This record gives sequence, C-alpha cells and structure tokens, in this order.
Amino acid sequence: MESSGPPTPPPVTLPEHVRTINVGLSMFAESVIAQGAEAVDVDWKIPAGGRVDAVDALGRLLGPAARSLDEANAEVVRRLDESTPFLRSIGSALDEVPGMDDRTILHCGPPLPWAEFIDPLRRSVRAAVMAEGWATSPEEAERLVVTGAVRLGSANRHSTSVPMASALGPSAPVFVVEDPQSGHRAFSGINQGPGQTAWFGVESPPAVERLVFLRDAVAPVLEAVIRASEPVDVFSVVAQALQMGDDAHMRTQAATNILIRHWLPALAGVDHPAGAEVARFIASNHLFFLNIAMAAARCATAWAAEVERSSVVVGMARNGTTFGIRLSGLEDRWFVAPAPPVEDALFHPGYGPDDGAPDIGDSAVLELIGLGGASAAASPAVAAFLGGSMGAAVATTETVSRICAGLSSRFKLPMLDFQGSPVGVDIRKVVELQITPAINTGILHATDGSGQVGAGIARAPMACFEEALLALDASIG
Amino acid sequence: MESSGPPTPPPVTLPEHVRTINVGLSMFAESVIAQGAEAVDVDWKIPAGGRVDAVDALGRLLGPAARSLDEANAEVVRRLDESTPFLRSIGSALDEVPGMDDRTILHCGPPLPWAEFIDPLRRSVRAAVMAEGWATSPEEAERLVVTGAVRLGSANRHSTSVPMASALGPSAPVFVVEDPQSGHRAFSGINQGPGQTAWFGVESPPAVERLVFLRDAVAPVLEAVIRASEPVDVFSVVAQALQMGDDAHMRTQAATNILIRHWLPALAGVDHPAGAEVARFIASNHLFFLNIAMAAARCATAWAAEVERSSVVVGMARNGTTFGIRLSGLEDRWFVAPAPPVEDALFHPGYGPDDGAPDIGDSAVLELIGLGGASAAASPAVAAFLGGSMGAAVATTETVSRICAGLSSRFKLPMLDFQGSPVGVDIRKVVELQITPAINTGILHATDGSGQVGAGIARAPMACFEEALLALDASIG
Repeated sequence: MESSGPPTPPPVTLPEHVRTINVGLSMFAESVIAQGAEAVDVDWKIPAGGRVDAVDALGRLLGPAARSLDEANAEVVRRLDESTPFLRSIGSALDEVPGMDDRTILHCGPPLPWAEFIDPLRRSVRAAVMAEGWATSPEEAERLVVTGAVRLGSANRHSTSVPMASALGPSAPVFVVEDPQSGHRAFSGINQGPGQTAWFGVESPPAVERLVFLRDAVAPVLEAVIRASEPVDVFSVVAQALQMGDDAHMRTQAATNILIRHWLPALAGVDHPAGAEVARFIASNHLFFLNIAMAAARCATAWAAEVERSSVVVGMARNGTTFGIRLSGLEDRWFVAPAPPVEDALFHPGYGPDDGAPDIGDSAVLELIGLGGASAAASPAVAAFLGGSMGAAVATTETVSRICAGLSSRFKLPMLDFQGSPVGVDIRKVVELQITPAINTGILHATDGSGQVGAGIARAPMACFEEALLALDASIG
Repeated sequence: MESSGPPTPPPVTLPEHVRTINVGLSMFAESVIAQGAEAVDVDWKIPAGGRVDAVDALGRLLGPAARSLDEANAEVVRRLDESTPFLRSIGSALDEVPGMDDRTILHCGPPLPWAEFIDPLRRSVRAAVMAEGWATSPEEAERLVVTGAVRLGSANRHSTSVPMASALGPSAPVFVVEDPQSGHRAFSGINQGPGQTAWFGVESPPAVERLVFLRDAVAPVLEAVIRASEPVDVFSVVAQALQMGDDAHMRTQAATNILIRHWLPALAGVDHPAGAEVARFIASNHLFFLNIAMAAARCATAWAAEVERSSVVVGMARNGTTFGIRLSGLEDRWFVAPAPPVEDALFHPGYGPDDGAPDIGDSAVLELIGLGGASAAASPAVAAFLGGSMGAAVATTETVSRICAGLSSRFKLPMLDFQGSPVGVDIRKVVELQITPAINTGILHATDGSGQVGAGIARAPMACFEEALLALDASIG
C-alpha cells in the first residue's frame, strides 16, 4: 500500500551548465568562476557617476545634439592630428608673443590671483622678476608683484605653453613655432634643464643665473643654429621619437637626441664664445625638446579651437592651484577644479607623497594631441612608473583611447603593432565613463624651494569636465 | 523464429571525446581540429635533419660530454654577457692593429684567395689600395693584388671586425676599444656612411675620396673629440639604444644619436678646419655607431674564445663567398659554408633578389652577443623587414632563444617585458633543432658596383655548424 500525503512535487531540473553574464560589480562574476562555471564580466558603471544633471546633459549631447557634435569633433580631431608646426626662430617674449608687454610675467596654467599661487610658482615668478633685473631679492620681487608694479598673465592666453612652474618675463627667450597650413603661431620658453631651476620652483641665485644664461648665451647661439639649419618639423621628430621610447612628455630624450643630431653641423660651426657651453647645456638636458613639443601642441590646439562648438578638449593646463580645460566655441572660458596630486609616483631618495606639490604646468596640452599619457604604451620609461610592466603602459593608452574621439595618423605605437595613439579627449565620454586623461608629469617640492622631487602620473579631476559638459549643454539649449 | 547465421560481433565502442597529441607534421593535428576534436600539436622534427654522423656526435655532446660543455658554455656566455669594452682612441691600422704591416689590406670574413672574392669585395679592396696612394686606377690596384705586391689578410685574424664589404689599408683609421676586465683590445674602421662608398662595394672616385676624408679629416677630429670626452662604455650605449628601437645591427640610429649627444660639447669646441664638415658627416650617418658596436663585440668574443672547448660560437663572419664560424678551443679554425642569400629583404626601388650579392661582412659578430637578429624584438625597423608586425620580430628573437645558451643581463627587450636577449649560440642546439642564427644585414649589388640595393635578414647556413659539431666531437673523442 502506498503511503498517502501531499503529492510529490515534480523534481526541480537544474541546468547542467551555467553561463553567466555579469554586469557591474565584478565580485559576482568572480564568485561564479570560482565555482567552476563560466562568466563574462562586463565592466559597467553607472554613467556620469549617477550625477543627475550630467546624465541629463549627456542625454542631449549623445542624443539630439550628437550628430552636430560628432561632425565638429571630427574636424577638431583632424586639426589636432594634421597640424604641422615648424620651429621657425627664437626671440624675446616681448618681441614675439602677441599681447606681451614690458611689465608682465607670464605663468603656467589658467589665470589666478597671486594670493592663490602655490609656493613653487611664486618662487618661479620671483626668479623671473629678478632675471629681468627688476629686483635683486625674492622679497623685493614679491613686493613688485603684490603692489601691481609687475603684472601677471596666463601664458596660455598668449598662445604660449610653459612646463611645470615656469614663468616668463618680457626679455625671456621663446621658441616660435608656426603651422603654415593654419597660419597659427605658438610659443614656449627654452627648457631650463635639471638642477636648481626656476621651472622647478627654485629661486636661488643659480636658478636666476640659469634664466640669464638662457637669455644671454643659449638664445643667441640657438638663433644662429636655427637660422643655419633646415627647419624642424616638430611632430615628425616626435613621431620618430615615439618609436624610440619617448612618450614626448615625461621622456623626450629620443626627440632631443634627434634634434641635436639635426643641429650638430650648425652647432659645430657656430661662432659664439658661449658655443661649447651651450652645447654642454643642451647635451645634458634630456627634456630640452619638451618645450618645443609643447609649443607645437599649443599651435595645433589653437587651430582646433576655431571649430564651432565641439565636445573635444582644446586646452588643458594647471597652475598648481587649479586644473583647467577649455572647449572650442567656449574658447575663452576655463573650466577649473582643484589641481590633483600626482599619483603612480617615483620620488627622489628622501622624498615622498607629503613633499609633492599638486600637478602643475601647461604640458598637459601634449595629452590632447596623442602624446604623454596617451602614448604611455610607447615608453619603457613611463612603464617604470606603472610597476615596470609594458602591459601597464599599454593599459594606460587603452584606457585613454576609451575617452578619445580618434586615433593619430602619425603617432604610432609599436607595442600596439603601430596603431595610432588616441587623440581628442571627448568630454562626453569622460563624464559618461568617469575616466579622465592620465598626464605624465614631474613633481615639485610643495614648500621648500628645493625643486623637483619626483615624477609620476596625474589623473585630471572629473569636476572640470562635468562643468564643461553642463556649459556645453547650456550653450546648445 | 530467430534467424540463424554468424553470431553478431559485440558493438564497437567508439570514444565520445578524442584528444590527440600530434608529433611532427602539423597537418595531422590540423585535420583533427577541423573535425571538431582537440589536438595538441608538438612542433617536432627529426634531430639534425636525420644526418647520421651528426646525430651520433650529438649523442656524445649532449650525453657523456654534456656536463663539461655546459660548464664551459656558461663561462663563455658569462664573458659575452659581462665584457665591458670602452672606446679608447682612434689611430691608423698600422699603428694600432697587432700584426698589421705596411703592404696589407685587411678584409671582412674568413680568409680567402683573391680568385674567390666576390665583385663588391674586390672593388672595396681596390678602393682601399687607391686610398693608400699605391695605385691611381682600379686596374692598377688589381695588378698589385694579383702579383702579391699587396697582400690580403682577414681582419678577423687581427682582432678587427669590419662591416659589409669593408677593406682596411695600413693608413686607414681604426677605433680602438678595450675591456679593462679582460685586457683585450679590438678594432674596427670608421663607418663609411651612405652613398658611393667602398664598404658597399663601390670603387668610384667619390668612394676613394670618402676613405681619404675618413683618414685626413674625420680621424683627427674624432681623436680630439674622444680625448676631450668621458670614455664611452659601448655596451651601456647599446643597452639604452635597445630601449629606443635599435637592434644595434641593422639600425644603430639611437646609439649614434646618444654618442653624438655625448660628444656634442667636444664637437662644438673642437678647433679643426674640417670640424663642421665632420659634424655633418656624422650627423648624416645613422650607422655611425655600427662599427664601434662591432669592435666591442669582437672584444667580447676574444675573451670568450679563451675558454677551453665549448660548443658556443665565438666567431661568425662572412666574406660574401664563405660564411664561417669559430669555436673556442678550436680558435684558429674557421668552419665555412657557402655564403647564403639575404632573405626577408626590402630592396631599393628598381632592384630585386637577382641583383643582391650574398650575405657579407663581419657584423654577424653582433648576433653572438645578443644583438641584431637576437634583438629583433627591440626594433620596429627590423619588424618592417618581417611584414611590418612586431609579433614577427618577437618571434624571430624567440626562435634565436631556442639555440642560445643564455640571456643577456644588460640587453633588455621591452616587447618581452624586459627579458634579456638571447646570448651564446650553442651549435648543439643549432644542429639538433636545425635552426641557425638570423642576421640583420644590408644587401650589396652583386656585380655592377652600384652599392647598397637593399637590406634584409640572412639565415646562417647549417653546413658550417654541422662541420663544427663534428670537429668538436672529434676533438673530445
């Protein structure tokens, strides 16, 4: 006799194989895999970090406004990718830089009141004032600035890009680059080299002497050398240098060497009492090419900035206090956020994160045209800051690719089998994916004027991209 | 009623899954995979190509004699890897090269009777005779060689390594490198540069004038420059250059640039009427560093060759007719085979495989210490000869690794996450696996004296490794 009772439910049929697609937090996928099943893990985050106004703006900028922005972005990318500035000459900032006057000091980064300057940039400005002969001590120089007898201006506003905590007085020599295609000109100072130098936030007598040496010896020698040599196609040199381990930002050794070889006959033939001393200075400065690359990048962004209303960044600079970006169509406006710390850093012996000033300088303009962090995959030197693995450098480039609107047709990456580096940071992608550009950069001492204490990789702050996105949206609506 | 007849055989039980390990011809594995099953394909070949005497010798050299050979090989590899030659000076071959005399022309490759010289090397020898002032025409120069009034010698026999179809007369300038650790010195000429030059098998007046220019202008200027500069650690420069796209054989542009930067202050300060012209010559010669690297490699192999009885190659050179290798312990003996063609070639416009002379020059010494083909993975330029893919360049390095006894501790390859390049070609592995070294090299016109017509990758011929293996076996037995 069979037992009575509730009827037996039909047996539950469990699947023999489970295949999972996990969206979001990867721990769920990991847990499935740990139990021997298959899982595809989709790296998904809430767009725009869940910020409602940004999601709202993205809805428009990736929706109804997308087509017109995409077209404008393609033209911005084309200009960033095709601008071909040549190194034309060297002259004083007063003679060459538009809008410069004889009582102004130009500084890196977005405009800023003196009271908000960080210590290394203050020191650099005072060194520039002393190099002009307007003051004989930092205290005297400070007074001139505080009283307004010496004015301050953002170099970027004057088509000039200067690295780290650089400041330029009217007599300071500047490289002049020019793109014959666009007619644009742009400028940068001569790289000040290693050691006790004002661009590293040092205002000691040797730092001031270096500025005088650049003006009174290096500039006249280089003026003769540039005149005697074939013009330098700046980005052609950079393209070669990317095949030689440069990222063209943190490392410009290959490009500097190429330039030295190019100039060698003229340098050997120059008739100037300081010729050999200038040669020694250039030969001992691996970052000599940096400023020339920056002037060329500034030249390219000036052309790109003439495109009406795009979501691609055409200006990116830091003064150590603020980190700012600019968009075409909103050309004169800086969208700023507090300057970030420099992460993934290697410090000189005896220094650490507490000693470092925030990210500073105009050199981030290089990251807009496919160099620096965008070309991390080109550079074993950059890999050294990412744990020493080329894989990490490649990953940095690939992350930057996710927020860019195009790939360079000239800056090729051997590690990626000669794929172009990413060009044209699109703020829509930055805000949607919550990924900001990686910037390869040096680190200055925050307070004591001892100069460079390390180098590393800075991540641009998200806030300025979000503000720019809202402003772009408002300008369309 | 059941049918009668033969009993039904038990059913054949076929396995549900087939997993195959295929050894040898890969088509069997491919066929299994094509049918949806799994196969592991073992890339196996008959050792030594099935040559019985070689298999027999390998049995001893990888068997009873293996331990003593492995120990000797480790010491050879250590010397190839640790030798640290410095560039010391420049002087005439007569003054500097041991055993040189005033009526000898030194040539690349193993010794060879004049009647067997190929056309480009004949032309180069005649150009060297004319540069000495011994003859004013190729015909006159030819007569002097044929009659024995001018003698011929293998440069290699005199610790001298010269690239392509180079020939050196007694007045020709040579770089002197010296390894303080081993006390060895070695030599090479000054690289003759591009265009109509004797090392490319040209004997025209400009080619002869280039030799005179090297002796009368470049050598005295460089002598002053070397004296005024810090000594150059040759392999330290090479190690940097491998991070910058050089393989240090086919491409030495990065190393040349580093050297130029190193010498720049001295070059700018040199007081010589030809200073600027010499600077122009060096700046336009991407292979300037090649000869210096070769001299250093020759210096390293001289030290390694002092180790008793090893199976690692300590000499590898070609005269365009024969390709030869040498073993330590059997130092004075060349094992030769006919010089191979250069494969994986890119030809200059208008030229093709039929125009190319066989592989020539002493530069293959670089492949013995981890450079050239061994460092293909370092060089986008080499990848261009392998279809343009860095993957193919990496594969070349990995293939060379299979026949080498060690990895370089100083020549690091970024594409392989800084693994050292393979050092020390072991003839046992070469013969067993039937893989010979890949050599990155230029190609000269075979007959018409027009110079370089291309570049590519040569594979060393197997026969000389097999002969060496048998001789090594005989010397042990």
